[in-house]
Amino acid sequence: MGNIRLGELVERFGGQLAGEPDIAVSGIAPLDSADASQLTFLSNSRLRSQAEASRAAALILSPADDEILAATYAGARIVTPNPYAYFARVAQWFEKQREIPAAAGVHPLACVDQTARLAPTASIGPYVTIEAEAEIADGVVIGAGSFVGRGAKIGANTRLAPRVTFHAGCVIGENGIIHSGAVIGTEGFGFANDAGKWIKIPQTGRVVCGNDVQIGANTTIDRGTLDDTVIEDGVKLDNQIQVGHNCHIGAHSAAAGCVGIAGSATIGKHCMLGGAAMIGGHLTIADGVFVTAASSVMNSIKEPGQYTSIFPLTQHKEWERTAAMLRNIKSMRDRIRELEKKIKDQN
Amino acid sequence: MGNIRLGELVERFGGQLAGEPDIAVSGIAPLDSADASQLTFLSNSRLRSQAEASRAAALILSPADDEILAATYAGARIVTPNPYAYFARVAQWFEKQREIPAAAGVHPLACVDQTARLAPTASIGPYVTIEAEAEIADGVVIGAGSFVGRGAKIGANTRLAPRVTFHAGCVIGENGIIHSGAVIGTEGFGFANDAGKWIKIPQTGRVVCGNDVQIGANTTIDRGTLDDTVIEDGVKLDNQIQVGHNCHIGAHSAAAGCVGIAGSATIGKHCMLGGAAMIGGHLTIADGVFVTAASSVMNSIKEPGQYTSIFPLTQHKEWERTAAMLRNIKSMRDRIRELEKKIKDQN
Amino acid sequence: MGNIRLGELVERFGGQLAGEPDIAVSGIAPLDSADASQLTFLSNSRLRSQAEASRAAALILSPADDEILAATYAGARIVTPNPYAYFARVAQWFEKQREIPAAAGVHPLACVDQTARLAPTASIGPYVTIEAEAEIADGVVIGAGSFVGRGAKIGANTRLAPRVTFHAGCVIGENGIIHSGAVIGTEGFGFANDAGKWIKIPQTGRVVCGNDVQIGANTTIDRGTLDDTVIEDGVKLDNQIQVGHNCHIGAHSAAAGCVGIAGSATIGKHCMLGGAAMIGGHLTIADGVFVTAASSVMNSIKEPGQYTSIFPLTQHKEWERTAAMLRNIKSMRDRIRELEKKIKDQN
Repeated sequence: MGNIRLGELVERFGGQLAGEPDIAVSGIAPLDSADASQLTFLSNSRLRSQAEASRAAALILSPADDEILAATYAGARIVTPNPYAYFARVAQWFEKQREIPAAAGVHPLACVDQTARLAPTASIGPYVTIEAEAEIADGVVIGAGSFVGRGAKIGANTRLAPRVTFHAGCVIGENGIIHSGAVIGTEGFGFANDAGKWIKIPQTGRVVCGNDVQIGANTTIDRGTLDDTVIEDGVKLDNQIQVGHNCHIGAHSAAAGCVGIAGSATIGKHCMLGGAAMIGGHLTIADGVFVTAASSVMNSIKEPGQYTSIFPLTQHKEWERTAAMLRNIKSMRDRIRELEKKIKDQN
Repeated sequence: MGNIRLGELVERFGGQLAGEPDIAVSGIAPLDSADASQLTFLSNSRLRSQAEASRAAALILSPADDEILAATYAGARIVTPNPYAYFARVAQWFEKQREIPAAAGVHPLACVDQTARLAPTASIGPYVTIEAEAEIADGVVIGAGSFVGRGAKIGANTRLAPRVTFHAGCVIGENGIIHSGAVIGTEGFGFANDAGKWIKIPQTGRVVCGNDVQIGANTTIDRGTLDDTVIEDGVKLDNQIQVGHNCHIGAHSAAAGCVGIAGSATIGKHCMLGGAAMIGGHLTIADGVFVTAASSVMNSIKEPGQYTSIFPLTQHKEWERTAAMLRNIKSMRDRIRELEKKIKDQN
Repeated sequence: MGNIRLGELVERFGGQLAGEPDIAVSGIAPLDSADASQLTFLSNSRLRSQAEASRAAALILSPADDEILAATYAGARIVTPNPYAYFARVAQWFEKQREIPAAAGVHPLACVDQTARLAPTASIGPYVTIEAEAEIADGVVIGAGSFVGRGAKIGANTRLAPRVTFHAGCVIGENGIIHSGAVIGTEGFGFANDAGKWIKIPQTGRVVCGNDVQIGANTTIDRGTLDDTVIEDGVKLDNQIQVGHNCHIGAHSAAAGCVGIAGSATIGKHCMLGGAAMIGGHLTIADGVFVTAASSVMNSIKEPGQYTSIFPLTQHKEWERTAAMLRNIKSMRDRIRELEKKIKDQN
């Protein structure tokens, strides 16, 4: 664990320090658990009273919260417009100090084709297979048991966790992370039906990911059929996500666990897909759309905003009654019509 | 890339050629991107005007579309009842030409039990484990890092992508494909509850797959408890699908990504399960059923047809209102009854 | 296969034997398929007539069913309060007899760091990677191609199937099972948004699993952000489940395939989550809650009981009509109000 003085911290990460710059901190922790050697942060004003009670050496907070807390808060304060992002960057710094870097070079138990191009600073773990003509840039880490197919390209400082599959011809940019069990570039689900039997359509496109892309554990992304499947810069995909062939996910969009995106869907930039949201094939989702968890999108969405499709949860007995009435909603509508007609006839 | 003359093409794949048989083509592409050295195809009559504008060397189309386009279309035409299936077969042929075949034999870094029976034409990649008495037929390809358990049987020309798990005793027929990360033959989820604790029920059946079966990336199929889990000929399962123990999936059925099929469900032949469809346990689904994506099936389905269960997506604010009213649908029904009673009393 | 005398069986597993203790049985099978050398069991009274017709050497049944069947049933009977749990234990015993135990010791093709502490009775398969300071207890089996990260701890007799990822620092107790493709301890999905870009929040907690935990194929469990993700004793997770960071799952709860549990959710003890149930983040679910398959939980649940949220399945045409009316439910409510007003004005 590294220590850092508050003065050095604001030099590195910005923000205005109110307090003694020579105080050193050894880590960052939530409001209720930070001790006197640690930093903490207030990212939600409703926790202001919890912040006041914190024992932390210093508090990261917004200008608005600082106006209220400045007079009474005993410890040091670092004022910054986005305390949560500040926390993330400081936490990354502490993490970096304690990290044990992967050893550069190829593990003797790895199997690397002689035509693959590996930067000397790349780290290739045991039981890794790297096929012909793959390109592995500087600072890349390939975890134990991973597979990199023929001609695939891994950009600088991108990290593959153990047991990743990165198929032939696929591309990922710099500073990416692919978690264990992910499969990038499978042949997508393309078949022509001929008299009841399925004829396979070859899938010859690639998966092309930009920079700063994170792909979760056991997530799968299919290669394009003829064109490529595209994941733009800064996209974050959680675990167990399925992305079909020819999808296009816009920059800085994020999808939580268990999301499914059917083939040829286009997701805009800065979208958020809640966990287990399902996006139908060949749809277009505008920039800035937020799909609530467990919701299903069957048509394109043209306007930003939050969209939802969840049957409300109730006790099972009540659900049975509600579901039965929903099945009969047409008869309710018809009875209303009938009543309206009768009333009208009366008058 | 191979080239093929149109005359040779119709000899191989059938169809009637209207045009010069000596024209050679180097590939197949969609209507809007095919160039003068390529074939294209019209599988949807609504794209007829796009077909007319195509620059392709030849157009694959149906007799009905040919009647309309024959007079005006400048290039060669191949007339066939199912242009999409024709496209799939031709694309397979081109794919075959450019494919780099896996080298026959056992990679020096594979671990194959001496009692396993391997056809000499099989290709076993690095870091593959093949346990005792497994049988690997002619032309099989086992990708890097895959595992084939004791006594498992892989039929001729079936291909396991890298990092597949194929557990002990399981069977797959000929010409199959299992994609990366798939797990075939896990012990299913079987427990007896004894005073609040779960007692494991051993799972001693197998998974038995027919010929021409495709299993997607990270899909899991559990072995049967006492009998087998059965996947019939021609079944196509996309990525991230879960098939529980003792399920039976009928020939030529297909399931899109993220589908879940609970234990002991029986799916008929020629069914289609849309993405993320969920099939309850111990159900029977008739032949020819189409379950819409994201729909949940809680009871058996006896008639073919399309079935759906999706809460309609709306803006979140509107959803909140609709959901609240749905919760109160019983009171609406009661108010209608009350009105009907009053009207009746008036008359 | 081992044989066992009925007398020895009741000595081992309890229950009252009515019949000849020297009869030997060679296995256990369902009512309709057990033959004269096998045991069978009646766990559902509705199958009583099937039990009467069974050819099995002996029938395991409850006292209530025994009262009815004792007079007429020809074979031996074992009376026990929970025949299904009895079946499970007996089946485990037979399974044990036929099991081929994994060879103790480290496979020559495994890669084990010299600072890892391995019990001599542990079995480490080919292509396994075990990093520095990991601790592997007695009787542990680590399947081919699995990865155990730095400092991870695997308790006695726990079994990792082939191709499991168990990340640095994570812990599992005794007698656990982790199935193929599971990924334990991925960095969870934690980001701070800064002007539209996602800043990664380091995930420094662990996953800590108790004893008798089973984790299904391709299931993923994220490490905690600062604290740990906790899976208590006896929890059973099926395949393809996602458990987010900082979740806490209470003892003896079970989740069926494809369940998603978002970050920081707390699930009580003895809960059951049906297949594909989705649990929102930061929720608390009381002990003894049963969430129906395919249901979505968006709020905490304080009382035990069964909860459901499924749009009822219908033929697609009918669904279209029902969905359209549901979208217009507000207008129905307004029309009812209007009618009520008119009736009131009349009187």
